[in-house]
Amino acid sequence: MSLIEEVELLRRIPLFAKIEPSKLKLLAFTSQRLTYKPGDVLFHQGDPGDAAFVIIGGEADVVVDTPTGPLKVAHLRQNDFVGEIAILCDVPRTATVTATLETTVLRIEKDLFFRLIGDFPQIAIEIMRVLAQRLDRTTADLRELSAKVKG
Amino acid sequence: MSLIEEVELLRRIPLFAKIEPSKLKLLAFTSQRLTYKPGDVLFHQGDPGDAAFVIIGGEADVVVDTPTGPLKVAHLRQNDFVGEIAILCDVPRTATVTATLETTVLRIEKDLFFRLIGDFPQIAIEIMRVLAQRLDRTTADLRELSAKVKG
Repeated sequence: MSLIEEVELLRRIPLFAKIEPSKLKLLAFTSQRLTYKPGDVLFHQGDPGDAAFVIIGGEADVVVDTPTGPLKVAHLRQNDFVGEIAILCDVPRTATVTATLETTVLRIEKDLFFRLIGDFPQIAIEIMRVLAQRLDRTTADLRELSAKVKG
Repeated sequence: MSLIEEVELLRRIPLFAKIEPSKLKLLAFTSQRLTYKPGDVLFHQGDPGDAAFVIIGGEADVVVDTPTGPLKVAHLRQNDFVGEIAILCDVPRTATVTATLETTVLRIEKDLFFRLIGDFPQIAIEIMRVLAQRLDRTTADLRELSAKVKG
């Protein structure tokens, strides 16, 4: 893929939509493009977290180990990002992410992630928004389940 | 309280620790200081969300309404912030926050909140970190409860 095509592809990801093309070239150069087959694991729960991922194409499951077996907590699609919790909180991976289709991702190392946020507040706001939405959804799930247990 | 004291107080809040004093003066001028008595409500679940809050002193409970009654999901202390989900996601308040001690807060309007994040990526990273920690904790709670239900 040419650099122009690469930048065009990044520009279509909502998270990067407002970044100027010259900066996207830098992102294209400094991030890694990886492809996974269905069943391939992007990372395992408990792994050290050294990068975040943006799904460029494909789909993946986010699964948490529980004492009674695996619990699917999310399904990722194009433009979703994942893996930011471990690098933000400096903790091991909190879930296992497995490709369910052939999946291509942009792998953004921790240092680059923090640099992007420093340079582009819009990215920070977008990530905060998604984290807040996930928190809202997880709290709603917890509320429902808790009502079921009591009721 | 003098402006110097006010800036000194803001500087001791970790969220603002890295902001230069001249900017903290602006924050002191443009944010609102409010004090609540024990039992006073900062905001109700379902209210429109127009501001975020930083706890300067005191303590407060975060409670979510469920079909089987109220569920306490968090307890806030000095330096905690709350109320950012509604302004990030443009949704009504997702919980009710009630002071349990005499509590003083910094009330930061939506516009100012986004301006602060744009000007100070460090604040954005700190907020993301706290959101990620909360998400991690809520997911762990959900995991435990789900194991209990199945088990």
